[in-house]
Amino acid sequence: MSNMSRISKFLPIFDWGRTYNQVTFTNDLVAAVVVTVMLIPQSLAYALLAGLPPEMGLYASMFPIVLYAIFGTSRVLAVGPVAVVSLLTAAAVGKIAIPGTPEYIAAAITLAFMSGIILLGLGLFRLGFLANFLSHPVITGFITASGIIIAASQMKHIFGINADGHNILEITISLRESITELNWITLLIGSLTTAFLLWVRKGFLPLLLKLGINQRASNIFAKAGPIIAIVITTLIAWIFSFTERGVKVVGEVPQGLPPISLPSFSIDIWTSLIGSAILMSLIGFIESISIARTLAATKRQRIDPNQELIGLGVANVGAAFTSGFPVTGGFSRSIVNYDAGAETPAAGAFTAIGLGVASLFLTTLIFYLPKATLAATIIVAVLALVDFSILKKTWIYSKADFAAVAATMSVTLIMGVELGVIAGVLISILTRIYKSSCPHIAIVGQVPGTEHYRNVLRHDVLVNPQVLTIRVDESLYFANTRFLEDRIYSEVAKKPDLKHVILMCSAVNAIDMSALESLNIINERLMLGDIKFHLSEVKGPVMDKLEGTSLLKDLSGDIFLSQHQTKKLINSD
Amino acid sequence: MSNMSRISKFLPIFDWGRTYNQVTFTNDLVAAVVVTVMLIPQSLAYALLAGLPPEMGLYASMFPIVLYAIFGTSRVLAVGPVAVVSLLTAAAVGKIAIPGTPEYIAAAITLAFMSGIILLGLGLFRLGFLANFLSHPVITGFITASGIIIAASQMKHIFGINADGHNILEITISLRESITELNWITLLIGSLTTAFLLWVRKGFLPLLLKLGINQRASNIFAKAGPIIAIVITTLIAWIFSFTERGVKVVGEVPQGLPPISLPSFSIDIWTSLIGSAILMSLIGFIESISIARTLAATKRQRIDPNQELIGLGVANVGAAFTSGFPVTGGFSRSIVNYDAGAETPAAGAFTAIGLGVASLFLTTLIFYLPKATLAATIIVAVLALVDFSILKKTWIYSKADFAAVAATMSVTLIMGVELGVIAGVLISILTRIYKSSCPHIAIVGQVPGTEHYRNVLRHDVLVNPQVLTIRVDESLYFANTRFLEDRIYSEVAKKPDLKHVILMCSAVNAIDMSALESLNIINERLMLGDIKFHLSEVKGPVMDKLEGTSLLKDLSGDIFLSQHQTKKLINSD
Repeated sequence: MSNMSRISKFLPIFDWGRTYNQVTFTNDLVAAVVVTVMLIPQSLAYALLAGLPPEMGLYASMFPIVLYAIFGTSRVLAVGPVAVVSLLTAAAVGKIAIPGTPEYIAAAITLAFMSGIILLGLGLFRLGFLANFLSHPVITGFITASGIIIAASQMKHIFGINADGHNILEITISLRESITELNWITLLIGSLTTAFLLWVRKGFLPLLLKLGINQRASNIFAKAGPIIAIVITTLIAWIFSFTERGVKVVGEVPQGLPPISLPSFSIDIWTSLIGSAILMSLIGFIESISIARTLAATKRQRIDPNQELIGLGVANVGAAFTSGFPVTGGFSRSIVNYDAGAETPAAGAFTAIGLGVASLFLTTLIFYLPKATLAATIIVAVLALVDFSILKKTWIYSKADFAAVAATMSVTLIMGVELGVIAGVLISILTRIYKSSCPHIAIVGQVPGTEHYRNVLRHDVLVNPQVLTIRVDESLYFANTRFLEDRIYSEVAKKPDLKHVILMCSAVNAIDMSALESLNIINERLMLGDIKFHLSEVKGPVMDKLEGTSLLKDLSGDIFLSQHQTKKLINSD
Repeated sequence: MSNMSRISKFLPIFDWGRTYNQVTFTNDLVAAVVVTVMLIPQSLAYALLAGLPPEMGLYASMFPIVLYAIFGTSRVLAVGPVAVVSLLTAAAVGKIAIPGTPEYIAAAITLAFMSGIILLGLGLFRLGFLANFLSHPVITGFITASGIIIAASQMKHIFGINADGHNILEITISLRESITELNWITLLIGSLTTAFLLWVRKGFLPLLLKLGINQRASNIFAKAGPIIAIVITTLIAWIFSFTERGVKVVGEVPQGLPPISLPSFSIDIWTSLIGSAILMSLIGFIESISIARTLAATKRQRIDPNQELIGLGVANVGAAFTSGFPVTGGFSRSIVNYDAGAETPAAGAFTAIGLGVASLFLTTLIFYLPKATLAATIIVAVLALVDFSILKKTWIYSKADFAAVAATMSVTLIMGVELGVIAGVLISILTRIYKSSCPHIAIVGQVPGTEHYRNVLRHDVLVNPQVLTIRVDESLYFANTRFLEDRIYSEVAKKPDLKHVILMCSAVNAIDMSALESLNIINERLMLGDIKFHLSEVKGPVMDKLEGTSLLKDLSGDIFLSQHQTKKLINSD
């Protein structure tokens, strides 16, 4: 590997930076303008969702995107605050501080730092595979349930009341308690904005297309819905002095670039947040990498999971030092970036500059922006994530997957996001272990005219009454050895003429210590009944381990490379 | 099934009871006398180990053994207090009460009741398979570590000092703190008794054999060591009035049959004990059933795991109502029962009568029995359980099993018995999951002259440059699908002439939802590169699930019953 390519492996910027020219610059700039316009409302809204002051949303969208551009491998991924991670932030930080307090803000900053360190650690130690333990159905179920919780949590802004809670039950009870304080003007703004944004999604895009605007441009314009809603509702709130009628607005937002911040290093805070930080890092990573992979596939670019972890890690550490909160790659903004024609991560840097300009000069303009408008943008955005079809799909295909999805969804909704993910992972691991503890076992025979052996119950095969060939469709280990023993003894009891038992190991990928002892016992017991015990099709890695064990020494029968060889030997008996 | 055999399935007593005659009666009676003599010191000692008054040991040995005789399937298993379960009782009850208090006794009785209910539940719902999750190496490691803790916990009686603790660290610190109060006479009794009992084990048996006494009788006499030690040390302690010199003795033991007792139904107690009760039930069950199986195998009798659970469950419930504490099948007493010629569970009933006589008439005789003597019998008994060879065996055979054993042993020693078992089970499950997340994957080719396909790296096989056959040695599921995808893409990238990729599924025992999506993606990507994707040797149960999925509809290639069929088709290309 040359020096250059070694550097560009760890700093991908050296890869695309060398071929940067005016065409790519123009494309990136256009994309950046589009994304900036879209990001302003989104950043404010996700800060609100996380229980933080709106400006922190802008801050979290600036430096992290630049840092990811330097270290990440995706060329179009846009990193910043996203819905699910903001919800997880609120859930985690809400456990140790009250929203709106300086302690709450400090904890959110610390959480970003911890998440950054965890992601960097996972990347440096190449532990990205850990994310594989969150199965696709679990993730889908989790995102759907989170979307519902997020939407429910924003209802208080639509109603103009105070409420809180980290799961559907808490939120519903809290909303019911204060529903009497309902503010009708707020409700009107909130519901009209929601209706408008839903129409933009469903009706505006087809309209643009009908008007002859091309697909890509239509897609981009359709994403401008939130900014239109913000401009209009802010103007109305200002003209009619809605603040005097109890409508909550964003209010004073400090002007200027992100102030430097420092994470806390209090042991207490770290201990309370560490579990949440790990969970959030893994979920953020999975969300981010699946977007990156989808977008990269269409352009045949490669995504390196461990380098992605480093990119996201540095972005989060950056967020912690620039008054941000936990970030990851966001779906809608990355799509917009991609659709708007971004070619290199430089587009991200231009977006950061755009947001910097906004936070320097535009913050006074959003004083009258109603919180109900931001809530409506969040609700419409997350409802797009809600997808119950995974329940039906898994029900049809696999009850174990269904159990994992159902557990993830219901625990997330009823007990909160963190327990929801944990429940999903546990159920998927336990069902897998349970299934392998009572594996499929087939008695096999020869498919006539071939050297192939299949299940006697499913295929028309040849069998010899003196020979019993048992194929066990699972690795042999502590949880299933007893099951195999019992099955062999009961099959042997049924066949009085039996002289040979062959264990066909084509599906046995490992034999652990407990299973080895079981095979020894089976061998001994069969010997007492004057039956020889053979193994066939033992795989290389399994055979390597068996070498030198007492099983091979004491085995009454032989070990055959292929099942078919057993035929010749037994015939010669 | 006739009515009779249906009854005898649930009440095995009807099975052996019908053929009972004078010969079996005599044999059972002889065995019962031998076992009673051996059980008296053992019962007293295990009560001491559990932190309970000595008479509770006798009580726990009476009714449970009779109840097991009615409901259990083993003909020679002797149920009563055993070392490991007594240690677990002390660990569990010690968390909520102080040894020697009425609360402690009540909690031990409640624990027996809970354990009984759990065992009955497991038996009725046929959940005996749960015990399979404790692998053989984990159990061996646990018993060894428990043996060491038990021996250490008895050192205070040998030294004649006060000390406590539930793991090696606590016990050592506690012993060091009070070692200054050492009682020299107690130490002398304790160490001489230990030496004597060790000699009985190692030297007495060979001596008896040399004297021409047959193996069986010698075995029985050698077990009489503890009763000899008790008689001698009690006499000495009485004659020399050792109690006046600070030697602790058993003291006043109430005379009479077991008083009726009632378990507590306090929610608090049940919540604190439920985890321990489950653990204890499983461990007790495993210990008991492995003894029962070993003894049954030599006489070709059958042990039904679920009926065993019911037998042990009823025995524990019985213990709870007759002032006992948790019980299970004991190793040494069952062996003695077997060696002494017991033929039916009636021997157990006779033993119970023997113990009843003892608790009616002999309790005054053991007033002067030194606690150091009982401690010595415990130490010698449990040291026989200590076996470190499992560390070496697993190290050679399987590092994953080694990790589980090492974790079980070290956590048990350092953090106590309950965490030790949990650590062992978790490590064995996690290593298994980890291994299956990066499975062995082989590129295979045809073994010349056969229809058999094996690893190109291990065998001299034929391959076609246009065809890549990949055999993955694991079921496909969420944890390993990404691994498979990456491997296929990297193999494909190496072979420019490739036209066909065949996934050989002989070792794929299941395909979950995540893996199904991965296969869809692999199929699509290969299609883009003009490569056909085939499956071969898909097992029946897997194929059943794939029917009707989009994978089968969209698959660019075919599905072949045997790997060898792929050859013909591809040649016809």
